[in-house]
Amino acid sequence: MKKLINSPDAVVRDALRGIEAAHGERVRVSYEPAVVVRADAPVQGKVGLISGGGSGHEPMHGGFVGPGMLDAACPGEVFTSPTPDQMLEATKAVSGGAGVVHIVKNYTGDVMNFDMAADLGKSEDIEVETVLTNDDVAVEDSLYTAGRRGVGVTVLVEKICGGAAEDGRPLQEVAELGRRVNANGRSMGMALTPCITPASGNPSFELADDEVEIGIGIHGEPGRFREKIAPASHIAERLMTPILEDLPFTSGDRVLAFVNGMGGTPLIEVYLMYGEVARIAQEHGLTIERNLIGNYITSLEMQGCSITLVKLDDEMLRYWDAPVNTPALRWGV
Amino acid sequence: MKKLINSPDAVVRDALRGIEAAHGERVRVSYEPAVVVRADAPVQGKVGLISGGGSGHEPMHGGFVGPGMLDAACPGEVFTSPTPDQMLEATKAVSGGAGVVHIVKNYTGDVMNFDMAADLGKSEDIEVETVLTNDDVAVEDSLYTAGRRGVGVTVLVEKICGGAAEDGRPLQEVAELGRRVNANGRSMGMALTPCITPASGNPSFELADDEVEIGIGIHGEPGRFREKIAPASHIAERLMTPILEDLPFTSGDRVLAFVNGMGGTPLIEVYLMYGEVARIAQEHGLTIERNLIGNYITSLEMQGCSITLVKLDDEMLRYWDAPVNTPALRWGV
Repeated sequence: MKKLINSPDAVVRDALRGIEAAHGERVRVSYEPAVVVRADAPVQGKVGLISGGGSGHEPMHGGFVGPGMLDAACPGEVFTSPTPDQMLEATKAVSGGAGVVHIVKNYTGDVMNFDMAADLGKSEDIEVETVLTNDDVAVEDSLYTAGRRGVGVTVLVEKICGGAAEDGRPLQEVAELGRRVNANGRSMGMALTPCITPASGNPSFELADDEVEIGIGIHGEPGRFREKIAPASHIAERLMTPILEDLPFTSGDRVLAFVNGMGGTPLIEVYLMYGEVARIAQEHGLTIERNLIGNYITSLEMQGCSITLVKLDDEMLRYWDAPVNTPALRWGV
Repeated sequence: MKKLINSPDAVVRDALRGIEAAHGERVRVSYEPAVVVRADAPVQGKVGLISGGGSGHEPMHGGFVGPGMLDAACPGEVFTSPTPDQMLEATKAVSGGAGVVHIVKNYTGDVMNFDMAADLGKSEDIEVETVLTNDDVAVEDSLYTAGRRGVGVTVLVEKICGGAAEDGRPLQEVAELGRRVNANGRSMGMALTPCITPASGNPSFELADDEVEIGIGIHGEPGRFREKIAPASHIAERLMTPILEDLPFTSGDRVLAFVNGMGGTPLIEVYLMYGEVARIAQEHGLTIERNLIGNYITSLEMQGCSITLVKLDDEMLRYWDAPVNTPALRWGV
């Protein structure tokens, strides 16, 4: 295993030191428990927004902390759920009297711990609403999941809810909007190569030299099937067809198209995939109103990509376009 | 070779299609010859700024086209210099009567072809100034280079000159500023793994399972030496020491610190490296006034990183902070 780390058990701590050194004017970092909090939190009267999950998916979630997006993020160890005390700490740190939304990807550990943290928060008189993301159409249940996995739509929920919270919208409305984004979003991913967690030192799965896995999870969980590597146009169809059929998306829909690199994919390939996605969307009569292209929800150095489509309405579009000022997403400021 | 491509000889064209589909409101893409041009170019009375080089280093340069940075970029085939006709086309497309700056990384093919394009531009009555970047302290001459290679500082030259051009500064001043950034910038990179060009299908070099290469070039050109993988703190010292000694940087200097991922490096590791760089900078009495962290000048899926430091003055700082609106760098708008 070759990685730019000091030791396998200090990866998350040392990366947090980097975030603190880089973005200390924007965020506060605490280490025990590990939480990244927007520097000016809590913002009085604003709904607080937190998320969290295992590390190894950067920039999600720590890179999305800042005005217009998350108020705090709880990084677990690599591919490991954060603990309820991290989530409670984050909930308290961002509570400005208007309640707190927990954005939770649907993995058993995340759900259980966020549930516990929500109860703890409520016992301290903080109103908590949970938005669960479960947009991955690849498989119904999975290695760490009952029901569908939460993947790419999480980034979009965080941005759109962040815009609504910044706009002063009340707790229930922010949460409902987040649920609507999730309900109108579908994703699917694929891998060319596995990744290696620092703690294990070994690839999370094996793929032959000419093989890809369609429907992979962001921790390397099994997908739908494996097949021989094929042209990008074919791979894009493999991902887009189940996405389009599932919602379903229909001719005339306005969508946000998010093509995400898994962390080890060259950007030239991610853009090439976007070209294929745009072609397929056009063939189906969809209008791509907005796009997001790059490495945003990753799996360490895994090579591959995922595609997320969200059927947009005017409110989602408005809050997608709203100013955001985080390390990983920034516009309008 | 497993890549998200349609065929090895169509990678650049197909990725350009993705850029056009994604950013068509910001840029115009032409294919014969291949040039990415800011949508509103030429801006009358503004100095035009172009750059270019082999593809495979994305987002450099095409991702840096837009207000506040480049007016056009010329993508060559992967790791192959663009041709003089691409550069001439770009020069003409961005010429608004105030002259054009060519930002050229020091590689033999790039230098030769940009020289030719500058002559062709002048013969069409366009004033051309060239800013050559050669910030890599690793080696004096290299596989494709007489003198030092141009690497990370190129991104910073493009941003800072872009700010100055947008501010209406005349040709000579924009070029002089670019040369000053280069003269005050030093870089060094390292690799954990090689990359595979689509055309060759084979790794550009071989590294043992426990070995890293210090001083690697962005095309996999040999660096200074190989050694066993070591903690990130050690690797950061290996890169920072030659950088600090070369300018030299001295206590009290204000710097911009740029920690760049080589394309296949997880962002968690890039941030971890930034933490080490910030520590070393502090130990040497440097003040990091600004930072840039992420994958900006890459080598396809190579794993590794590079560090660039620039000694800042007020003018550089002002134009670094100026608004920029490109696919890969955006702030202030």
